[in-house]
Amino acid sequence: MALRNGDSYKRSLQQLRPNVHKWGRVVEDVTTDPATRLHVQSVAASFDAAFDEVRAPYFTTTSALSGQRAHRWNTLLRGAEDVLGNALMKREQFRWTGTCQGATCAGWTALNALWAVTHETDAERGTDYHARLREYFRFVEDTAPALAGALTDAKGDRALRASRQPNPDAYLHVSEVRPDGIVVRGVKAQICAVAAANEIVVVPGTAHGEAEQEHAVAFAVPRDVAGLTIVETRRPSDARDEEEGWDAPKAGGITQAWLLFDDVFVPRNRVFLCGEHTATGKFVAIFSAIYRAAIGACVAGQGDVMIGAALALARANGLGQKTFQEKLTQMAVNSEVTFSVGVGAMFLGRNHPSGLFIPDPLLAHVNKVQVGRLPYETKVLAQDISGGVAETGCLPSFKDFGSPAYGEALLTAAGGAVDGETRARLARLVEWLTIGGGVPGCMHGGGSPDGAKLAIKGLVDWERRVDDARRIAGVTRPLAESR
Amino acid sequence: MALRNGDSYKRSLQQLRPNVHKWGRVVEDVTTDPATRLHVQSVAASFDAAFDEVRAPYFTTTSALSGQRAHRWNTLLRGAEDVLGNALMKREQFRWTGTCQGATCAGWTALNALWAVTHETDAERGTDYHARLREYFRFVEDTAPALAGALTDAKGDRALRASRQPNPDAYLHVSEVRPDGIVVRGVKAQICAVAAANEIVVVPGTAHGEAEQEHAVAFAVPRDVAGLTIVETRRPSDARDEEEGWDAPKAGGITQAWLLFDDVFVPRNRVFLCGEHTATGKFVAIFSAIYRAAIGACVAGQGDVMIGAALALARANGLGQKTFQEKLTQMAVNSEVTFSVGVGAMFLGRNHPSGLFIPDPLLAHVNKVQVGRLPYETKVLAQDISGGVAETGCLPSFKDFGSPAYGEALLTAAGGAVDGETRARLARLVEWLTIGGGVPGCMHGGGSPDGAKLAIKGLVDWERRVDDARRIAGVTRPLAESR
Amino acid sequence: MALRNGDSYKRSLQQLRPNVHKWGRVVEDVTTDPATRLHVQSVAASFDAAFDEVRAPYFTTTSALSGQRAHRWNTLLRGAEDVLGNALMKREQFRWTGTCQGATCAGWTALNALWAVTHETDAERGTDYHARLREYFRFVEDTAPALAGALTDAKGDRALRASRQPNPDAYLHVSEVRPDGIVVRGVKAQICAVAAANEIVVVPGTAHGEAEQEHAVAFAVPRDVAGLTIVETRRPSDARDEEEGWDAPKAGGITQAWLLFDDVFVPRNRVFLCGEHTATGKFVAIFSAIYRAAIGACVAGQGDVMIGAALALARANGLGQKTFQEKLTQMAVNSEVTFSVGVGAMFLGRNHPSGLFIPDPLLAHVNKVQVGRLPYETKVLAQDISGGVAETGCLPSFKDFGSPAYGEALLTAAGGAVDGETRARLARLVEWLTIGGGVPGCMHGGGSPDGAKLAIKGLVDWERRVDDARRIAGVTRPLAESR
Amino acid sequence: MALRNGDSYKRSLQQLRPNVHKWGRVVEDVTTDPATRLHVQSVAASFDAAFDEVRAPYFTTTSALSGQRAHRWNTLLRGAEDVLGNALMKREQFRWTGTCQGATCAGWTALNALWAVTHETDAERGTDYHARLREYFRFVEDTAPALAGALTDAKGDRALRASRQPNPDAYLHVSEVRPDGIVVRGVKAQICAVAAANEIVVVPGTAHGEAEQEHAVAFAVPRDVAGLTIVETRRPSDARDEEEGWDAPKAGGITQAWLLFDDVFVPRNRVFLCGEHTATGKFVAIFSAIYRAAIGACVAGQGDVMIGAALALARANGLGQKTFQEKLTQMAVNSEVTFSVGVGAMFLGRNHPSGLFIPDPLLAHVNKVQVGRLPYETKVLAQDISGGVAETGCLPSFKDFGSPAYGEALLTAAGGAVDGETRARLARLVEWLTIGGGVPGCMHGGGSPDGAKLAIKGLVDWERRVDDARRIAGVTRPLAESR
Repeated sequence: MALRNGDSYKRSLQQLRPNVHKWGRVVEDVTTDPATRLHVQSVAASFDAAFDEVRAPYFTTTSALSGQRAHRWNTLLRGAEDVLGNALMKREQFRWTGTCQGATCAGWTALNALWAVTHETDAERGTDYHARLREYFRFVEDTAPALAGALTDAKGDRALRASRQPNPDAYLHVSEVRPDGIVVRGVKAQICAVAAANEIVVVPGTAHGEAEQEHAVAFAVPRDVAGLTIVETRRPSDARDEEEGWDAPKAGGITQAWLLFDDVFVPRNRVFLCGEHTATGKFVAIFSAIYRAAIGACVAGQGDVMIGAALALARANGLGQKTFQEKLTQMAVNSEVTFSVGVGAMFLGRNHPSGLFIPDPLLAHVNKVQVGRLPYETKVLAQDISGGVAETGCLPSFKDFGSPAYGEALLTAAGGAVDGETRARLARLVEWLTIGGGVPGCMHGGGSPDGAKLAIKGLVDWERRVDDARRIAGVTRPLAESR
Repeated sequence: MALRNGDSYKRSLQQLRPNVHKWGRVVEDVTTDPATRLHVQSVAASFDAAFDEVRAPYFTTTSALSGQRAHRWNTLLRGAEDVLGNALMKREQFRWTGTCQGATCAGWTALNALWAVTHETDAERGTDYHARLREYFRFVEDTAPALAGALTDAKGDRALRASRQPNPDAYLHVSEVRPDGIVVRGVKAQICAVAAANEIVVVPGTAHGEAEQEHAVAFAVPRDVAGLTIVETRRPSDARDEEEGWDAPKAGGITQAWLLFDDVFVPRNRVFLCGEHTATGKFVAIFSAIYRAAIGACVAGQGDVMIGAALALARANGLGQKTFQEKLTQMAVNSEVTFSVGVGAMFLGRNHPSGLFIPDPLLAHVNKVQVGRLPYETKVLAQDISGGVAETGCLPSFKDFGSPAYGEALLTAAGGAVDGETRARLARLVEWLTIGGGVPGCMHGGGSPDGAKLAIKGLVDWERRVDDARRIAGVTRPLAESR
Repeated sequence: MALRNGDSYKRSLQQLRPNVHKWGRVVEDVTTDPATRLHVQSVAASFDAAFDEVRAPYFTTTSALSGQRAHRWNTLLRGAEDVLGNALMKREQFRWTGTCQGATCAGWTALNALWAVTHETDAERGTDYHARLREYFRFVEDTAPALAGALTDAKGDRALRASRQPNPDAYLHVSEVRPDGIVVRGVKAQICAVAAANEIVVVPGTAHGEAEQEHAVAFAVPRDVAGLTIVETRRPSDARDEEEGWDAPKAGGITQAWLLFDDVFVPRNRVFLCGEHTATGKFVAIFSAIYRAAIGACVAGQGDVMIGAALALARANGLGQKTFQEKLTQMAVNSEVTFSVGVGAMFLGRNHPSGLFIPDPLLAHVNKVQVGRLPYETKVLAQDISGGVAETGCLPSFKDFGSPAYGEALLTAAGGAVDGETRARLARLVEWLTIGGGVPGCMHGGGSPDGAKLAIKGLVDWERRVDDARRIAGVTRPLAESR
Repeated sequence: MALRNGDSYKRSLQQLRPNVHKWGRVVEDVTTDPATRLHVQSVAASFDAAFDEVRAPYFTTTSALSGQRAHRWNTLLRGAEDVLGNALMKREQFRWTGTCQGATCAGWTALNALWAVTHETDAERGTDYHARLREYFRFVEDTAPALAGALTDAKGDRALRASRQPNPDAYLHVSEVRPDGIVVRGVKAQICAVAAANEIVVVPGTAHGEAEQEHAVAFAVPRDVAGLTIVETRRPSDARDEEEGWDAPKAGGITQAWLLFDDVFVPRNRVFLCGEHTATGKFVAIFSAIYRAAIGACVAGQGDVMIGAALALARANGLGQKTFQEKLTQMAVNSEVTFSVGVGAMFLGRNHPSGLFIPDPLLAHVNKVQVGRLPYETKVLAQDISGGVAETGCLPSFKDFGSPAYGEALLTAAGGAVDGETRARLARLVEWLTIGGGVPGCMHGGGSPDGAKLAIKGLVDWERRVDDARRIAGVTRPLAESR
């Protein structure tokens, strides 16, 4: 198959067992339930893009494994151009729907990172994970699934390692190893786009130590695998997405879920790591290098929409570009910085012996630090430009605008240089982008800035910096870190 | 009376005609309706504070007009200490409920600004507004109302002055002058705390020109005056405040409304300006000097709660103060900066001939610029410290935590160094404070940073700056702004 | 006497023993030597200001001790207005000469802090320091000296306390206690304005512990006391101040020196602390509260001159205010923030039992943090506005402009909207203010931002913040810092 | 030849006519005169690097024109890797000497930009500039010169175009066209590294209009061409570079000069543009795209040295990395951001029909904006870490440290965890890097941030941003910029 359209994708989701929940109830059909449909709809648009001449180059590529055309998120990253393709696709997705599309993101990246990690692990330990993964990769290309990636564990007490947690399920772990596969249990938390995924790639969320061998596990399962209960989380203003009317834009949506693995069986050929704790740190390092090289493009795409929304609203208010050019330009600068630091990481990347292309980790982590700050500045600028009506959504509700008693008067009053509905829709868009359901998790999504700073600390050659300074200053005595 | 408690205040609200609406329906009882009760509740706590030994000094003062003890928000500001009292009360209110309390804020400030403006207007034009205002001030002290202040007009096309708007009701205006009073119509928008107010003080929102004499009007009306329709606006995640459970804290709430004046009659003794367009600019200048001197205290109070919430959540996560001290200290610095720039404005203020104390306008406007930036940094730091669970509220809903099928498992998984409910409540508090219903309108509330910058431009003596520089540099030729 | 003019002040300096050095040689006359004259000249202007009707209110005040008019820097601070007077004087001084005036600053503040500390020490230990200090204060008022204040020790290895230093003279200490006085030795470093001072007030630079009793010493000596060798330090571009021509403005200058105390005898009546180590922490706390409340005014004054210089140069370049208004306004905002945070600290200060007025320490330390950042932003903006000619002083030297061969051509080429000399002078002023001899030590002068942050950490009530958050969130279990 | 060493390069400079001046006198030998030798010395090190196995890959490349190994700054940029090579070389140069090396920078970039511009101009106008340039490029490769690039004109009144200047020489222009060449006159200002260059490439500094045809001129001349007078400018603390001792590091230095062209004759084969005003805008666009893609690497290299210097000094003070890790990491992040935004511009660049590789202009201009801010933050952090001794160089002079009377005592006092000389040298390095002769012209060098913002405004597709926002918000009416 390799390529399929949005309808086909939606049908495949409808065939899954309903194990997604929100509001204390089961979601019978993720493609239509108000709690999940927007993310599915936006992912469907990405499938459809494969058949759109203009957008296909962003959303598809030629597979290095099969030589056939495939959805980009089903393929192996073999060069800097592939990671750039990832970044450009993500920016386009944001521009198209205003949101990120988890079901074409973390699972894909996790598979790619496993490509290198299984290659190393097999070489070190004589295992056969890489062959299993290659087989799974072909399955992915053939069936064209949307893929969630589950890294983050519930984590419990952050001061304790996984093996020391009072609640043993705070981190996902192997509870039984059987000849035909493994049984896993525990909780993965804050996992994007599970409701819109066909498959879930489950991987370690941190570098585990020797005592955490049972937590060193990677595998793939269908989203509706037996024993898995999925509970969607709330997002800011999430109730609006389920309402009628324009109080939220409805072009796309984000979902994040908690995954309760209650002794889930995973067949042998879907297990990619099991007990190799030294592989977990490598996995996290490679995953984050790829992920953080592209993350700035997501943020840039969200910034692009904020630019457009703020400018559109300024015009609707009767003002315009000239009044706000300095701020608009700064918003654009912020977007391009996060985008291009990631592109720089790509250009300075290298190929792993397994064939995987890995962006430069230092620049990737540097970008995570930017991504934890610059989009917030951009949001502030968007609110500054947009005026009070957008800052905290200070507008009557859709229902009130429709009131027979006073709706007409409100609509007239809400008008600016344009009609009231137009202005209200744009104000709601700015609200949604900056303080509502459209705000992505820039700070902690894909790991925290503090974690990135730790990685940066490890990657900078501080002693060479000191030695250069000594030479320039004419200092001959060594200056070690001694106390 | 002068002082009354929260119950008495609530009863007074229940006696008003139900003219507040939300969700397309009328709010029958603002003290109990989920859409409005939280703000009423927080204002009631401020009334009760008058009878609490510890808090009374913040919430009451001795009236300069009557010599009796009164709720602080019912009194004339006669000195820097009074404005400081305003600021300290606001910081305490935020610390108590996590939100601002509009019904003890803008209306009070508007009355004070009118004290000076009516004094000047009478002197210039031989009118008797000041006596009317003095009488109203005594009425306020005697009846101890909560006061909303309505400045911002709907404004329509921002490129056009009020008199040029295609929609004549885009700005509130006098439609008829009668011997016994005036008739007004038009729309005031984004007005805080109307639902919790007994009285509304209506004043000009901008400096009007000669063509806008009918817009130069100030008056007071009961909240339920005939002809006034009030429609509450939505806030981020506002639906949660109306839900059961801990998905939002319920200590306080903000309301903002649009006010449709449909030929409302105002009796003569409640009219404080009518046609004196030159007074409008003075009013706005004095109002903003008082308001912006205190606004940093509100923001500081919100910052205080963010500090506590982030630190509490860090501990609940198993980490703590030491890990995040640099960030926590920066949050505190931000809070104290906005607080103390305002306090500086107070110390450098002066008394108006009418007896009103007016803080230094330059420093007050400088503070508005800070208030449009620093709290956003504080929010980012709060999210940085709190982790992904708080950033976008990435937790299951209260209903899901209560599910018989999987609620218990979720609660266990949500635990950190403490139980799951505690952690969830704190995460929801951080979400609410930083990206939810608790976010105050720091940017545009009380006017925009850009407006403040314009005022600053007008208040700085640029030519003296140039002349000092010339003297120091030894430049004798003049350097005028010539092109 | 109480008041004297600049000439009288200069003559008093000329009567001192020449113990100031620079460039490896002794400065015979500090009032005329190129290395020191500019600071002396600027201090002389502050003396003269006492006789200038317009400026006298800034530079003089009525002494609380004698009831007579005195130079402000010779008097006791009895109220918030006095500390404000200090701040306003400093801002005026900067506006007048472009530089700070150390000889009217730290020594004065040190005397004031000692006023409270000796009062407490006497009460605790039965000593008579306060009476000695009162006598010295009267002497100061009567003789109207310029006062340097020496706090910072050479400090040696920053990881070791004073008593553990391999070099015993790294911190000033008492080497002998005699019936008629004490003998001190050691090095004070980076001491402002010694060359322009009549007297030096020597005080502890840090909070010492029990093992550092010999370092707990405070006293006053004439600048030319026997055994004291003073060596001036270099400043950026300091050589230019000694050159002819306009490559540096010559309105004022800063001096900083290292003080080598080689067994200096101090008579008993000039000793204000000797061995009371617990007093050192108190001294530093009170000193820094006063000092840091006013430091923002210095920085604001420097900012004022930068605003003027950048705007003047923009005009000289043919551009002007309109082009750069956003940046100029931001510069003004930065200046006013540091100024007003300090003013806020004053308004919230309190009187010590000794009668000294002490500004609020939390806000004072918060201001130190601002002072370590905002002026740098202001400098960047000044350079941004001024263009490349000012950024790194990218202009030919005064000597080259005077070359018979090509000087005339250079002068013509250097012209903008005005003649070349005017433009060059203004460019040199911007260079001097932002990257030359006019840059004050905002970061570490008066202590480091990191030290201020430590103090802030100690002054914020973190547990009350947590408790407020818990209450608002509905969390009942305590959340202590446990690990 | 293609490759030569530093000695050979120095000898070539010594053979030039002495037409460089500073301090009102002629510089007889630029390789030994204190005013110029440091830059020459650092450029010589770059020549020598061609023969150093480790460094040669940074400093040389294989010429696309001749196929032979050449100094990198003598070659045509044919691909992204070439521009990356430029960037990496510049970062290495900074790390080696602490300064930029103008003589391997702007002239080279100008030649490359001319490669494309002459190609286009010939195609449009039938001229033969490209062939002349190709011939000159071969000459450059053969003779291995250091190249200065002269863009910036004296500019006179910034409000007037070149053709309207009262002083006709404010912009360089053609004063006569002859059959065998042209005669030029006027002033180029703030030109880097002329004293260390063999050749000067002179090009337009701005986009000229039709009235400025005589200003549309590009050519190359030997540095000592008849009629050219060169006057070096002052830099902060420049006098120290000419002194003995450690008050400035002496590893490298920057020079910038004003160039007075007094009817200089340029032979026909060295003229690359003459009168084609439409080419000037293209030239500036291409030049700045190349230049600004690499400029972040310079800044990163300076940042690297600041990191090393601050960390070394912290250690010398007795503290170390742990205390300052957060700040050190932020410094590294700043460096890597400017570096990688440029690298991103390279990866997204494209080949011009002439074969020249041009980085993405949007990202290149975005980087200029970063370069105008981030290094200043890095400087502030360096000063914050280093302590007061480095902030304004608050140390005795080299001469004082050598005083027989008190030098030894000073040296002892200056010691920290290490000897006084080591600590003094490191403090002087930090001073030099942050507020002394080592500060590069980040703000205006290579054009101003404001100019870059104008370019960004032109390169962002604002209308597409608005249209995306409209689509997402469900707004159908167009929203044009109408007023």
